[in-house]
Amino acid sequence: MKADWIAVDWGTSRLRAWAMQGETVLAEASSTNGMGRLSQDAFEPALLNLVEDWLEGGPIDVVACGMVGARQGWVEAPYSAVPVSPFPERLFQVQGTDPRLRVYVVPGLKQERPADAMRGEETQVAGFLARHENWDGVVCLPGIHTKWAHVSANEVVSFQTFMTGEMFDLLSEASVLRHSVGEGGDQEAFVDALGDSMSRPESLAARLFGLRAQDLLHGQSKATARARLSGYLIGAELAAARPYWLGQKVALIGASGLAGHYAAALKLQGVPAQVFERDEMTLAGLAAAHASLVDRK
Amino acid sequence: MKADWIAVDWGTSRLRAWAMQGETVLAEASSTNGMGRLSQDAFEPALLNLVEDWLEGGPIDVVACGMVGARQGWVEAPYSAVPVSPFPERLFQVQGTDPRLRVYVVPGLKQERPADAMRGEETQVAGFLARHENWDGVVCLPGIHTKWAHVSANEVVSFQTFMTGEMFDLLSEASVLRHSVGEGGDQEAFVDALGDSMSRPESLAARLFGLRAQDLLHGQSKATARARLSGYLIGAELAAARPYWLGQKVALIGASGLAGHYAAALKLQGVPAQVFERDEMTLAGLAAAHASLVDRK
Repeated sequence: MKADWIAVDWGTSRLRAWAMQGETVLAEASSTNGMGRLSQDAFEPALLNLVEDWLEGGPIDVVACGMVGARQGWVEAPYSAVPVSPFPERLFQVQGTDPRLRVYVVPGLKQERPADAMRGEETQVAGFLARHENWDGVVCLPGIHTKWAHVSANEVVSFQTFMTGEMFDLLSEASVLRHSVGEGGDQEAFVDALGDSMSRPESLAARLFGLRAQDLLHGQSKATARARLSGYLIGAELAAARPYWLGQKVALIGASGLAGHYAAALKLQGVPAQVFERDEMTLAGLAAAHASLVDRK
Repeated sequence: MKADWIAVDWGTSRLRAWAMQGETVLAEASSTNGMGRLSQDAFEPALLNLVEDWLEGGPIDVVACGMVGARQGWVEAPYSAVPVSPFPERLFQVQGTDPRLRVYVVPGLKQERPADAMRGEETQVAGFLARHENWDGVVCLPGIHTKWAHVSANEVVSFQTFMTGEMFDLLSEASVLRHSVGEGGDQEAFVDALGDSMSRPESLAARLFGLRAQDLLHGQSKATARARLSGYLIGAELAAARPYWLGQKVALIGASGLAGHYAAALKLQGVPAQVFERDEMTLAGLAAAHASLVDRK
């Protein structure tokens, strides 16, 4: 089988590509050539390096989402302002590419007030809506920068971003807590920390140092410290995101581990949340964008 | 004039030494040989490298505070448990040193529940009390790990540590916000962010990403972003530390810039706070420890 288009998820730190036939994945490849390390003229070589084997015959459509469309990306794909459909009204074509490629970039979404922005997650939301027509509710996309989005009548109405994932990474890897936080899990400690943090979310900075002190004074295990760190940060996020999830139907889109933590945390608040696989939603969203492109030709 | 003792403030990332005659500073020196980069046998060479010129005649007393007394330090000086006087009951002598040195380490303080610990700040509190006899109130020591301590009857009664300073450094230097935060100040933005954060401290992770979005969408200046980041973090800390400062007399010990931010923030809450210079308090505390050592001989 031969690929009839190529799907690309191009974030800050990773580049991932799939050889597609309709919605079927024929092959996939990835590299660490994320937007963050590429100058403008390095995008095409980075992509070709990954997909060259898939380029037989005539020019092939490449549909890409993520930071590739940022100002520092390959081509700037200006944000669409919410409320707006996550299915893009237009894609932004990269000019002057290798003749074997026709590269299109999906624009991100922005919200003027409170100021907020996303690039990549809109495609996951679009993929989710492609699979769940007329779905109304809240989509939460846990990750480095977790997004909460109100979805209604096939539009993203409003959204809010939390730096929870990036704070977890920085605190566990680069702060004094790196000496006290290790691998492993502890569900009881997670639940306990989540509850503490939801009831007094302002105490975050003090609780964090408490993880260090619990190690120094009482030899708390590194797995427990990791679970508590996660519980404190997700608890503070849930306390602030309450208007998003309270009394709502929540769909979680993310990697199974992290999305599972959010699902468990929401369940404790009496909110049922279903987890959907991130790559699957990304591919469904890119496929919808590609289909609209073909329709217009 | 000849030094009759040497004062040392030995933290995780810096080593500082003063040649002293009584409470008079004759000379000072510093290096980046903090505890964090030294193996156990590297402490003596690091110190000698800095103070060798001051070693004339017989053996000289060296009195050191800070992480030098941690388990990974030169000699472990076990914590004293609060409530306790910040003037140490005993100092811990390093054995087997160069015969020109007699090195004594000040122990830190610990609190069993909630678990907390300090090394170095206890000496600043002791210095402050040496200068202000019978002072009762709250001492706040802004820094990488800001400490709030209840002081009464010449004892530290309880204390709490906030990782505010380390979070500021990580977020402004290592997170996505490094692109949006720069040098400079903006007092109005600081005050505004402080108020926002004190009234809804749980929203921290969302406000943080807002700094990025305000840059992307509205071109917010890097100085304003820095002031707001500081205001958000200090505001969340003040919200959580309310039992420490509400209706209290507060003494701030720290570097003038950061302590000044705390003083301004507390003044907005109607709490007058006086700022005391960190090094001066450290030296007064080490001098008191040295004097008690001489008394005992």
